[in-house]
Amino acid sequence: MTEKFQQFRKLVGEIFDLDAVVSVLEWDQQTYMPSGGAQVRAMQIATVYRLWHENLTGDEFSATLEAAKEETANLDPDSDEVRIIRHMKREVDQWRKVPSEWVGEFKRTTTLAHQAWEEARANDDFAHFQTHLEEIVKLRQQYSEFFAPFDHPYDPLLDYFEPGMKTSDVKAVFNELRPRQVELVREIAERGSPVDDSVLRQDYDVSKQWDFGVEVIKALGYDFNRGRQDRAAHPFTTSFGIGDVRITTRFDPKYLGTALFGTIHEAGHAMYDQGVSPSLDRTDLITGASYGVHESQSRMMENLVGRSRPFWVAFFPRLQKYFPSQLGEVDMESFYRAINKVEPSLIRVEADEATYNLHIMLRFEIEIALAENKLSVADLPEVWNSKMEEYLDLTPPNDAKGVLQDVHWSSGYIGYFATYSLGNLMASQFWAKMEEDIPDLTNQIERAQFTEMLNWLRENIHQHGAKFEPLELLQRVTGNTLSVEPYLHYLSGKYEDIYKLS
Amino acid sequence: MTEKFQQFRKLVGEIFDLDAVVSVLEWDQQTYMPSGGAQVRAMQIATVYRLWHENLTGDEFSATLEAAKEETANLDPDSDEVRIIRHMKREVDQWRKVPSEWVGEFKRTTTLAHQAWEEARANDDFAHFQTHLEEIVKLRQQYSEFFAPFDHPYDPLLDYFEPGMKTSDVKAVFNELRPRQVELVREIAERGSPVDDSVLRQDYDVSKQWDFGVEVIKALGYDFNRGRQDRAAHPFTTSFGIGDVRITTRFDPKYLGTALFGTIHEAGHAMYDQGVSPSLDRTDLITGASYGVHESQSRMMENLVGRSRPFWVAFFPRLQKYFPSQLGEVDMESFYRAINKVEPSLIRVEADEATYNLHIMLRFEIEIALAENKLSVADLPEVWNSKMEEYLDLTPPNDAKGVLQDVHWSSGYIGYFATYSLGNLMASQFWAKMEEDIPDLTNQIERAQFTEMLNWLRENIHQHGAKFEPLELLQRVTGNTLSVEPYLHYLSGKYEDIYKLS
Repeated sequence: MTEKFQQFRKLVGEIFDLDAVVSVLEWDQQTYMPSGGAQVRAMQIATVYRLWHENLTGDEFSATLEAAKEETANLDPDSDEVRIIRHMKREVDQWRKVPSEWVGEFKRTTTLAHQAWEEARANDDFAHFQTHLEEIVKLRQQYSEFFAPFDHPYDPLLDYFEPGMKTSDVKAVFNELRPRQVELVREIAERGSPVDDSVLRQDYDVSKQWDFGVEVIKALGYDFNRGRQDRAAHPFTTSFGIGDVRITTRFDPKYLGTALFGTIHEAGHAMYDQGVSPSLDRTDLITGASYGVHESQSRMMENLVGRSRPFWVAFFPRLQKYFPSQLGEVDMESFYRAINKVEPSLIRVEADEATYNLHIMLRFEIEIALAENKLSVADLPEVWNSKMEEYLDLTPPNDAKGVLQDVHWSSGYIGYFATYSLGNLMASQFWAKMEEDIPDLTNQIERAQFTEMLNWLRENIHQHGAKFEPLELLQRVTGNTLSVEPYLHYLSGKYEDIYKLS
Repeated sequence: MTEKFQQFRKLVGEIFDLDAVVSVLEWDQQTYMPSGGAQVRAMQIATVYRLWHENLTGDEFSATLEAAKEETANLDPDSDEVRIIRHMKREVDQWRKVPSEWVGEFKRTTTLAHQAWEEARANDDFAHFQTHLEEIVKLRQQYSEFFAPFDHPYDPLLDYFEPGMKTSDVKAVFNELRPRQVELVREIAERGSPVDDSVLRQDYDVSKQWDFGVEVIKALGYDFNRGRQDRAAHPFTTSFGIGDVRITTRFDPKYLGTALFGTIHEAGHAMYDQGVSPSLDRTDLITGASYGVHESQSRMMENLVGRSRPFWVAFFPRLQKYFPSQLGEVDMESFYRAINKVEPSLIRVEADEATYNLHIMLRFEIEIALAENKLSVADLPEVWNSKMEEYLDLTPPNDAKGVLQDVHWSSGYIGYFATYSLGNLMASQFWAKMEEDIPDLTNQIERAQFTEMLNWLRENIHQHGAKFEPLELLQRVTGNTLSVEPYLHYLSGKYEDIYKLS
């Protein structure tokens, strides 16, 4: 390491520390904080976040960055040094456009909004959350304005989560996906051999659910020496450093799917964060290339692994031992079909793969309308319900199972949802390449052997952290740009088999 | 509130936030953090602590403080405004003498040392902790030097925990206490009617211990809506704000006393912090007048309440219901004598009240020798053991039960221990006054009614936070200065009864 880069690296570490500290405060808020702590916690988070912003956008850091850049001009453009500088430069350019006051206000608002959302959802009381969400939408609209001019006011929000992606790109993807996903769902409904998932809807002891979930994610490769699992109202993954990547989960004592697939999903995120190269620790690059790439890892674990037949060849006998009275008489094939039942449903995180993206499109359209200031928050429940009707032919019985179901907006995450769908696409693209490289993959999964799979993911994706932008990473790994075909190919293949369509 | 004070108050809040954030990070480290998180956590704590120091000692804060001081010059000298300014001025004066680099280095060192201490104690391996402690002693010696000239190099360390107290003051107190405590212990050993505490040393289910402890501290007045209890290697209390005051405890499945009295002790601290006036929230004044006054509240709950006969009149029947096979046949009086058995023992936190201060004197002498640079850390185990011999006629079987038993030094708390003894003295002084004001106190405790007691503590002590310095507070409440007599009077009265000495 060279002298100027070293000085820069020190400041990068301190900026990272502040960001990580906010994550610790938020993790605590969502897991263990007593209700009395909410007000002061909001101030604490706002104060640290503001300092993070001041340090990141201050003249000292920019000068140090420029000096380091000059000093490392002749290094390999793929070296850690060059990539750390490039990444931080992008962050500085982005955040210099945003005033510190906005940053503190945003964190204070979202921290309190999160608390209000939890209460609103628990009591099915949208009004309790409405003013909080109005503030958040206003703040996000302001955020957008900091980046004017833009093609679309939603672009800066999307770019926040998926660097380089435009509203028009996502619209194009969804326009390709929509008719073919709708057609698939229609075909399944009309011609599919019926699937019964009642085996999943029995009494399942929560502590046994916990234990089985832990057994699964340990087998997949989640490292409990560098992480832990706790309960929270909404499952999430958070990284405070490569050595401390935590996940949360939640349970439904009458439905096996909630915790099981939630846990595997979060473990997918967490293994990404645990797999980043130690040379990037204490930099902002340790949390992955983008939210979309992150979702590719979580949705891959949840669906391509966790909802696959080979996986249950290995794990169904184990699951039966946890729940002999519920599953002892069930055959693996019925269970496999049950966890893949396609049925329009109210809750996104429990949606099957065929309808999942429709949940996303609905949210995407609503967010665009909010960004364009064409939709008032007060009208959200009604608009939500009418779009549910349109996309999934369902009417939510209440707002708790409708517009209040997701945590994202309470955290200010307007612009996030599309990354789930992008993640679905990338997951299939990565998977196709991995199958080429590991011809024996299916057999390995059937034997619960995940080492080679995890090594492939580490080698090709995880270790790089945010060194490469999403599409650059995709190109390096698969040789292709973003495409819907591998995903649709996977989906139709899977459901033709399960629903005996062909 | 006036304009300049308001601006000052805003900065006070932000400085407080950073301090509270460090407390959250440390709480997490000691409760839930996976081992892989230690290295990065040390950096995070150091970064935030350094920023706390920079903000506190920066020119902006001092200028704002002076402006606020001028503006509020005519206010009541006991008003919140004047007292907050005075307190912060004292902090600024203190911390301006300490360089920011020292502050970051100290936190980084102690965070790693804490981890090493936990491992060293678990494995009875002093060598594993030694270099960490050497660094800490060196840092604390440096800290002392920042305050030169002084009467004694230990003075600045003591003052850190007990504002206004000098090494010579504590020596004088200990010189008064030592002969009379030694005499009491001797008398009990020679003439006392024997006490059998084997009832405490049986198998006690840990989850029932937890439940009983929670029942007790809820009854005493600890508010779980504004706090929580978790397990940790060493019990402690930490406050992130008046609405979030947490305690930790630990269990011995074969000894009832560890968790029970530890829990009550920490609840005593926590009720103090929960009882501070909301007008002081988000200021450094919410954590009490001093560590000594804090210990007066915890030791009062633990001993004057928790080891008293009236308390067990109320709670022994309840405890019997938790542990019928262990205690069903035991009478209350035997139990009361068992929990008050006087016997020289190895572990400070489990020591009886007659020998407790001897444990403190031993540590005090060692710390003074360290401050004077007359004792090397490598020799600590030997010196510890020989002093245990001298004071308590015992030789620790290993360092885990000797020099490694306490968390304090690993946290850099050199100068803390004396506050336990000062707390013992103040507890008795406060208690005597409270008994005057609440003539019915004993009867209330026998009926598990603690409302009037807690209200008295809130009114006279808790609400003020750090508005008054320790001896000023003592004077206001009791009309007296620090004195050993009420404490010795309490001790001899209690043990004459239990050991039938008179």
